[in-house]
Amino acid sequence: MAKWVYAFGNGKADGTAEMKNLLGGKGAGLAEMSGMGLPVPPGFTITTEACTYFYQHNQTYPDGLKAEADAALKQVGALVGAEFGNPAKPLLVSVRSGARVSMPGMMDTVLNLGLNPETTEGLASLTGNARFAYDSYRRFIQMYSNVVLGLEHSLFEEILDSAKEEKGVELDTELDATDLGRIIDDYKARVRKELGKQFPDDVHAQLWGAIGAVFGSWQAARARTYRKLNRIPEDWGTAVNVQAMVFGNRGETSATGVAFTRDPATGEKLLYGEFLINAQGEDVVAGIRTPQPISKAVRERQGGKKPSMEEAMPAAYAELRAIADKLEAHYRDMQDVEFTIQDGKLFMLQTRSGKRTAKAALKVAVDMVTEGLIDEKLAVMRVDPMALDQLLHPTLDPKAPKEQIASGLAASPGAATGEVAFTADEAEKRAGEGHAIILVRTETSPEDIHGMHAAKGILTARGGMTSHAAVVARGMGRPCVSGAGMIKIDAAKGEMVCGAHTIRRGELITIDGTSGQVFKGRVPTIEPELSGDFATLMGWADGMRRLKVRTNADTPKDAEVARKFGAEGIGLCRTEHMFFDPERILAVRQMILADDRAAREAALAKLLPMQRGDFEGIFRAMEGLPVTIRLLDPPLHEFLPQTDAEVADVARAAGTTPAKLRARAIALQEANPMLGHRGCRLGITFPEIYEMQARAIFEAAMNVERSGGKRVQLEIMIPLVGFRSEFDFLKERIAAVSRTIAKEHGRAPAFMTGTMIELPRAALRAGEIAESAEFFSFGTNDLTQTTLGVSRDDAGTFLTEYLSKGLIARDPFVSIDQDGVGELVKIAAERGRKAREKLKLGICGEHGGDPDSIRFCHEAGLDYVSCSPFRVPIARLAAAQAAFRYVNEDS
Amino acid sequence: MAKWVYAFGNGKADGTAEMKNLLGGKGAGLAEMSGMGLPVPPGFTITTEACTYFYQHNQTYPDGLKAEADAALKQVGALVGAEFGNPAKPLLVSVRSGARVSMPGMMDTVLNLGLNPETTEGLASLTGNARFAYDSYRRFIQMYSNVVLGLEHSLFEEILDSAKEEKGVELDTELDATDLGRIIDDYKARVRKELGKQFPDDVHAQLWGAIGAVFGSWQAARARTYRKLNRIPEDWGTAVNVQAMVFGNRGETSATGVAFTRDPATGEKLLYGEFLINAQGEDVVAGIRTPQPISKAVRERQGGKKPSMEEAMPAAYAELRAIADKLEAHYRDMQDVEFTIQDGKLFMLQTRSGKRTAKAALKVAVDMVTEGLIDEKLAVMRVDPMALDQLLHPTLDPKAPKEQIASGLAASPGAATGEVAFTADEAEKRAGEGHAIILVRTETSPEDIHGMHAAKGILTARGGMTSHAAVVARGMGRPCVSGAGMIKIDAAKGEMVCGAHTIRRGELITIDGTSGQVFKGRVPTIEPELSGDFATLMGWADGMRRLKVRTNADTPKDAEVARKFGAEGIGLCRTEHMFFDPERILAVRQMILADDRAAREAALAKLLPMQRGDFEGIFRAMEGLPVTIRLLDPPLHEFLPQTDAEVADVARAAGTTPAKLRARAIALQEANPMLGHRGCRLGITFPEIYEMQARAIFEAAMNVERSGGKRVQLEIMIPLVGFRSEFDFLKERIAAVSRTIAKEHGRAPAFMTGTMIELPRAALRAGEIAESAEFFSFGTNDLTQTTLGVSRDDAGTFLTEYLSKGLIARDPFVSIDQDGVGELVKIAAERGRKAREKLKLGICGEHGGDPDSIRFCHEAGLDYVSCSPFRVPIARLAAAQAAFRYVNEDS
Repeated sequence: MAKWVYAFGNGKADGTAEMKNLLGGKGAGLAEMSGMGLPVPPGFTITTEACTYFYQHNQTYPDGLKAEADAALKQVGALVGAEFGNPAKPLLVSVRSGARVSMPGMMDTVLNLGLNPETTEGLASLTGNARFAYDSYRRFIQMYSNVVLGLEHSLFEEILDSAKEEKGVELDTELDATDLGRIIDDYKARVRKELGKQFPDDVHAQLWGAIGAVFGSWQAARARTYRKLNRIPEDWGTAVNVQAMVFGNRGETSATGVAFTRDPATGEKLLYGEFLINAQGEDVVAGIRTPQPISKAVRERQGGKKPSMEEAMPAAYAELRAIADKLEAHYRDMQDVEFTIQDGKLFMLQTRSGKRTAKAALKVAVDMVTEGLIDEKLAVMRVDPMALDQLLHPTLDPKAPKEQIASGLAASPGAATGEVAFTADEAEKRAGEGHAIILVRTETSPEDIHGMHAAKGILTARGGMTSHAAVVARGMGRPCVSGAGMIKIDAAKGEMVCGAHTIRRGELITIDGTSGQVFKGRVPTIEPELSGDFATLMGWADGMRRLKVRTNADTPKDAEVARKFGAEGIGLCRTEHMFFDPERILAVRQMILADDRAAREAALAKLLPMQRGDFEGIFRAMEGLPVTIRLLDPPLHEFLPQTDAEVADVARAAGTTPAKLRARAIALQEANPMLGHRGCRLGITFPEIYEMQARAIFEAAMNVERSGGKRVQLEIMIPLVGFRSEFDFLKERIAAVSRTIAKEHGRAPAFMTGTMIELPRAALRAGEIAESAEFFSFGTNDLTQTTLGVSRDDAGTFLTEYLSKGLIARDPFVSIDQDGVGELVKIAAERGRKAREKLKLGICGEHGGDPDSIRFCHEAGLDYVSCSPFRVPIARLAAAQAAFRYVNEDS
Repeated sequence: MAKWVYAFGNGKADGTAEMKNLLGGKGAGLAEMSGMGLPVPPGFTITTEACTYFYQHNQTYPDGLKAEADAALKQVGALVGAEFGNPAKPLLVSVRSGARVSMPGMMDTVLNLGLNPETTEGLASLTGNARFAYDSYRRFIQMYSNVVLGLEHSLFEEILDSAKEEKGVELDTELDATDLGRIIDDYKARVRKELGKQFPDDVHAQLWGAIGAVFGSWQAARARTYRKLNRIPEDWGTAVNVQAMVFGNRGETSATGVAFTRDPATGEKLLYGEFLINAQGEDVVAGIRTPQPISKAVRERQGGKKPSMEEAMPAAYAELRAIADKLEAHYRDMQDVEFTIQDGKLFMLQTRSGKRTAKAALKVAVDMVTEGLIDEKLAVMRVDPMALDQLLHPTLDPKAPKEQIASGLAASPGAATGEVAFTADEAEKRAGEGHAIILVRTETSPEDIHGMHAAKGILTARGGMTSHAAVVARGMGRPCVSGAGMIKIDAAKGEMVCGAHTIRRGELITIDGTSGQVFKGRVPTIEPELSGDFATLMGWADGMRRLKVRTNADTPKDAEVARKFGAEGIGLCRTEHMFFDPERILAVRQMILADDRAAREAALAKLLPMQRGDFEGIFRAMEGLPVTIRLLDPPLHEFLPQTDAEVADVARAAGTTPAKLRARAIALQEANPMLGHRGCRLGITFPEIYEMQARAIFEAAMNVERSGGKRVQLEIMIPLVGFRSEFDFLKERIAAVSRTIAKEHGRAPAFMTGTMIELPRAALRAGEIAESAEFFSFGTNDLTQTTLGVSRDDAGTFLTEYLSKGLIARDPFVSIDQDGVGELVKIAAERGRKAREKLKLGICGEHGGDPDSIRFCHEAGLDYVSCSPFRVPIARLAAAQAAFRYVNEDS
């Protein structure tokens, strides 16, 4: 026969911490604490299975539940010397929900249950405190009417407010027992009026009403939505915890509080939290009285006057301190606890793993290893890789005064201060003169790249988390606030208006890409700290991971930053970004708009030394590590001149007319450029472009070596291959350039030729492609676009709605779609390796920096991930966790 | 030991017709005829394996080849009473290449080999005809010098011309033996001058030179290109045929000719061909004398004066007639033969399957069944499905006089005459007044649909075979010539200029979409004949096929045409085409540009009765056959107003301002509309659109049934599904509409809900989608775009180059990419059927009418293909052939 009820209390418990699925998180925690002998008010948990039964059987309770609950309730009464519904020694209980996973704010709670006119009088005489008894009853009626009977809080607040008004007082505490008695009558009358029936006096009816309401709250609209968004199965159900009440508001020897076993902001080992003497939890929330720190050290640090718990209640503090250590030793993690002190006696009401900042997470993890509480592996598992992002960028000094003038999306983390510039050229020019610049644009385009690079930060009025500005800024590690819609930019006038503020060109602003806020003037920032705990933990992580971590870097500067963060090579060097440089774009445009091969080659000849120079810088920065260079990829029209002046410039340089140029530009327009004439298709129709790039790569590698640099590991990557024939055609062209170089110089650098796998066809045909290609890099950005048939640029209009309707769980451009795109990656990896055992496999693109995707890459057997420089530490940590989980959870 | 040489002649042969791979097509045919006892000049074939050996061994011949060839040559001499190189009785031979498959014009031939000064004199005295002997030697030198020694023909033509000039004559025949002797000397001198060596007199050196040249021609640039384009493996090699010469130019009892065993244009059973008395093959080609018909009936029909072969050489004719029957009975197919009559004796030089028109193919196939030569299955296999296209459309009367004014691409077959209209509105208006119209546009867009529908044919100045005009015209079965670049259209002036011709609005032109030609005025046309042989053969085909054939039809008229062609249902009814009707586009635009749901619903309410009416017409036309209706699919901006006047119209109707409308239109623009906010994504963000469509479908079905129509088999199809959650969301919406209908009317029509599989993700997740979807239709157009990452609209710039460079064999939008897209189709079919055994599987889109793709669909286990109405017969035949081949070739 199923057991529906699990009791706890008096140093014993039917359940344990492991039974979270059955008892919910709260119930398992209470059982565990009770089983450890900690002071927990006795109670019992009705299992999640009872909830499941309830919904599977037309909202009825299973046989036996009532009898089990009654027996458990009697036992609870016996332990606290009380009896449920007995006016002489009334037992009061709390009824709380508790699901397997925390669903904050979703589920309901009823306190003080068991009160009716008779037991209230009994409580009054028992405690000698009529006001306490009446106030408890008042609170119960209000809470129960809301949670169980479905009446609005406001109905009762009105009555309370008018009672205070009548008496001419402001605080609830100024109402006495008589006042409260009258309010109770009014409350009950209101319930009668609203529902046409009496507020229940029968304590058992109260209890089962509350239990039913908790079960019911599992199917409330908000809970269903929350589950959908968080992928929590419908059939998990919630448990119900019924527990004897303890009161922190029974006088000056009573108190209530919350505490972290370590400082959740810094990780320092001390009891960190707040408590209030003679108060209940509600009072802390209400904020009428200011809670005091738990420990003396914190009080002194904050300069508080009122005594800390350590000073005011030293015995209770000592007990709490001992319990905290016991819990930490038991759970081997920092805990977040709730407690109540009733008449000097400490009761524990909840314990759970404590949320913490990235900095605290690092310190706690490293300290606990030092303390011998956990081993290094567990320490690595304890830090959320995404949280590291906070640590890698300058942050605003939290103590500094700030004047916020706008807000937008937190598009790329970090804080930056600079003078406002409204065009990329202006940003570049003034940055060149030594000024710190914030580039402010309505939105950015590839033409703005040089300005974005020159700026310390980017602010846009339009665009989401995957807009051009956001993606490029993250890649560059520049702080960015995007989509700050309230900003009106008048670039011609050289000013922007943010509500009441008008900021002119050259004036200082500060942006915080971690929060999305924009401030006037300079706000002091704090530089990131990459040594100490960070370095220790990353060292442990590096020892655990199998995946290598490379970076996506297009410039020597990016390469340097990435190496500082631990990158082990470049997984994606995009050669087109180099083309947007204003000094080069003219030659690029000449090349694109050339009528024939000769004219194109003339323009390419101008580009050759520039590209060679780029590569030399990157090779030097990487000091012999592998560098994967992707040949030209984007559709040519991205480089086209836009304005009449630009057209005229190009026409002059190319010796043609603006009209002819414009006609060619129109001919280059495409209906779907993402699926158009780009990638290796350019290389095939205009082989001279890739030939120039191959030459630049080879010559750069030789120059670096000749000047004493390390021999570079060259990996030349052909993008957008769908057919092996495409790859073969271009591979031979590159080989031919290498042979020419060898003839000219006596030797040519060693290199590998490989391809991006970014089309479903390429993934399926990976076997034959791998016969020719020496490495694959999964371009999962484009592979996601093609596999899902979703243009990233256009997805905003519907993907947001998909997420909010729960049709998809996560943005597939942020975390790899494992079921669809992921299967193609696995197919390609398997077929590729079958054809070429040593085939090198990596992933580039945004997914390379996403922990879930990194775990997927580990499982799919890839050799490395490549991500933007600022994601490198995240990837290192995520790769370590993936290796650990793969071994410990799945196999 | 390998046998390198296969002899034939004297009623015997080492080889047979089955040995095509070893002997090449020509060699196998000669062996077969010889083995049948037909009069074939004796000879031998050097195998393709010898050619392969030649290339695998640094261009050397295998051991034993020379000895075998010498022996065979001796045998040939013995059979004809001659000896190679013997001046007393010289043996002359032809040396011809012959690959496994015909490679017209690619390979080389040398005639009269074995002549030198001595044997020429011998031939002269033997035949008593010095002129014949000298002319044969002259021709040999010229041919050999060109084919074997690599000298230009023109070098020799110059000499010949100046000889004729000197003598003051015009024709070669006017030169006598003396003249020819001098020319021979000049030829030889020229060879010496060019090559610095003598023209070879040694006949064995001549022979091996010629054999080497034939092997060499296999690797000539033009042959390599031809093989690449036709996917002929490099290692097949060519055979060499060495055969005793016979001469049709030995006097009035000699002749040469070619004949088909049946009329290749009509299929009529008579010897159809031409012959020339006292002539060689070259003379027929040169066109100096007009050849005569073979049979008397043909001569009389053509009104020829000179006697036919039947009349002039009755004995030879009778023998040829008997041989023709023997060959037909032997090969069980119509043959194309070459023959020579030497001194009254008939020799067969070649036989092969005869090329024929679609009409002839049908008649020959059906007649041969009647004659008992073949069975019905073989008859069905004998007709090229694509050739049927010629029969389904009106064709130009071949005898009518024509004045061609332009030409373009043969974009959609059939001929049509009509008055020129330059806008869709004008076309529709004048067609409504009863005029036949040819719509002439620079290029067409979805806005022109109504004009294209109203017109008899479409002519565009821009656009390829897959341009909008071409695709839509093929779908509608309208003749179309696209990309006629020489036409300059001035719609404002109401005229078009084609070279010297100016055609004004309302003037008649005729277009031939089968040839791509455009003519002035009316050219009489011949209507297609769908009964008789066509109906007989299609009946046989229907009995053989397993695949059902449906049609893509958006209008009752298309549905009727398709049923006439044998469609068994509608596989794709695109609801958006209905929206382009000028009466509706206003309401559609109101809907799209609506700011909120209420405004959108108001516009949809206007569209409901129109859509209902469309569906009623289609359901009536299909008389109870299944109809698959795809809910709205294209990006909304396709419907947007373009001109200021259109914007003003919509603004007025919607009660808003043009400026607001234009802003909304800009907001709807997308970077890659193909991958944007379309398909089910529209249904999810604007559920009311699909709800309106579902209601229109259900109400139409009930109306048709109520008015006595047959109960329609409804299949509602949701496009562009990538996630099962999308499908489920919309399936439930449609079900809800059905429930509402049931409440309103007491009952609702039965229907199935299914989805397009047109995204790689959908194919991969077919298992879970099929748990919910009742049918799949493979939208291979979009599946090709996404799997290959190629936008059909933009592919022209590079796919053409891919085809010409041999990187791909066929346009993947014409014939399904079996390796890539095909694997996804197979994966989806397998996973879908695993989840739902009875899952109905079909294909819609252009591939559904392509025979190779249809064979693929058969093999993949699909239930049906759906294609445009005019492709239905093609698909029926191709499906039958697929079923036959699947059983007979693969298993």
